[in-house]
Amino acid sequence: MFKLYYYPNNASLAPHFLLHHVGAEYDLLLVDKKSNSQKSAEYLKLNPAGRIPTLVYNEQAIFESPAICIHICELHPEQGLIPVIGDSARPLFFQWLAFLNNTLQAELMVRYYPHRHTNDESTIPNVVAAQDERIAEALSIINDQLEHNDYLLGDTLSACDYFLFMLAEWSLPIQRSPLTFKHLASYLNRLSDHPTVKAVCDIEGIDLTPFK
Amino acid sequence: MFKLYYYPNNASLAPHFLLHHVGAEYDLLLVDKKSNSQKSAEYLKLNPAGRIPTLVYNEQAIFESPAICIHICELHPEQGLIPVIGDSARPLFFQWLAFLNNTLQAELMVRYYPHRHTNDESTIPNVVAAQDERIAEALSIINDQLEHNDYLLGDTLSACDYFLFMLAEWSLPIQRSPLTFKHLASYLNRLSDHPTVKAVCDIEGIDLTPFK
Repeated sequence: MFKLYYYPNNASLAPHFLLHHVGAEYDLLLVDKKSNSQKSAEYLKLNPAGRIPTLVYNEQAIFESPAICIHICELHPEQGLIPVIGDSARPLFFQWLAFLNNTLQAELMVRYYPHRHTNDESTIPNVVAAQDERIAEALSIINDQLEHNDYLLGDTLSACDYFLFMLAEWSLPIQRSPLTFKHLASYLNRLSDHPTVKAVCDIEGIDLTPFK
Repeated sequence: MFKLYYYPNNASLAPHFLLHHVGAEYDLLLVDKKSNSQKSAEYLKLNPAGRIPTLVYNEQAIFESPAICIHICELHPEQGLIPVIGDSARPLFFQWLAFLNNTLQAELMVRYYPHRHTNDESTIPNVVAAQDERIAEALSIINDQLEHNDYLLGDTLSACDYFLFMLAEWSLPIQRSPLTFKHLASYLNRLSDHPTVKAVCDIEGIDLTPFK
C-alpha cells in the first residue's frame, strides 16, 4: 500500500497519475498548503525540504516528485512506464525527466513564487516578465521534440508524459500558453483523453476542458 | 568510447568525475562558452537546450547532467555508484539527485545568471540577495543529512556525492559558503582527497585548496 502526501494540482499530480496507471492501492493524504502544513514539524520529519509530495511505501518515505515517479515505475516494470536497463530509450527517459524538472518546473516555480527570488516586492513584475519568456523557450524545445514523436520518448507513453502533462496544466495561464504550440497542443489534447488523466483529474478537481 | 562535451567546472564536472571513477575511456570535447558555442547550430543538433554537457556513447547523444550521470552509472553497475533496482537506497539516490539538481543547482543558476530572471538590470542585486538566502537553505538541508551519514546515501559513496561536490565548488563564493556548515565542510574536506576528485580537478584546473 502506497501513501501519497498530496495537494490537488501540486507536484503530487504526476505521482498520482502513475499510482492510478499501474493500478496500485494507495491512500491520498492531504497536506493542507493553506495552513502551511508542509512546514509542520511532523511533515518535515518525512520531508526535510518541506514540499509536496512525499510517498511512503514499505515504511520508507521518499520526497522529490521525479524520484517518486521513478520509484513507482521501477516497482511496476510490467507497465512499461520507464524503459528497462539496456533499452536505448532509458537514458532519454532520464534526460527528458531532468529537463522537465530542472528547467520547465524550476522556471514555473520562479514565475509563480517570484517574491521568493527578490528581496524587493516592487521588482516582482520584472521577474514575472522574464520568466514568461523563459517558460516559452522551454515549451518550444518540447514542442520541437513532439513534432515527429507521439510521446516524449517516441512511440510509447512513459512517466515523462504524465510529468509533462502536470507542468503543461500549470502553464496554461502563462503569456504563451502550451496550447499556442502546435505539436504540444495536439499532444496535450490526446493525453487529456487518457483514462488515467481523466480519472485522476476528476479526483483532484482539475478542469480538462482547456485542452479540448 | 565516451565523448563528453564539456567546459571546465561546468555541469560536465559530475559526469567527468564518474567517467574517471569507472575507468572508462573517454574523449573530452571543449564547448567554448566564451564564444557561445553551446548555441551553435551544430551543437544544438546534439543538445536542443544548448547547454553543457552532452554525452555521446554508441552514437547516441544524451543531455542533462543528472541523466548523463545515471547513464554512466547504469553502464557500470559493478562500480556501485547507483544502488541496484530493489535496493532500498535506490529511491534515495533519485531523491537526492533530484533535490541537488532542481533545488541547489537551480537556485545557483538564478544566483549566477540573475539577468536572465528579471527584465530590469537595476533589480539584479535584489535577486542575488534573495538567492543567497535560498542557497543557504538548501545547503542547510544537506548539512543535516550529513550529520549522521558519511555520504548522502549513508555509508557508501554514490554519484550523488560527485554531483554535490560539483555544486559545492560552485557555491564557494556565496555569502554562506558550504564550508560554513559543519558536517558539509567535513564531508567536502574528505571528498577533496578522493583520488578521482583530485585527478579530474587537476585536468579541469580546479583549485581544491579551499576545501583543506
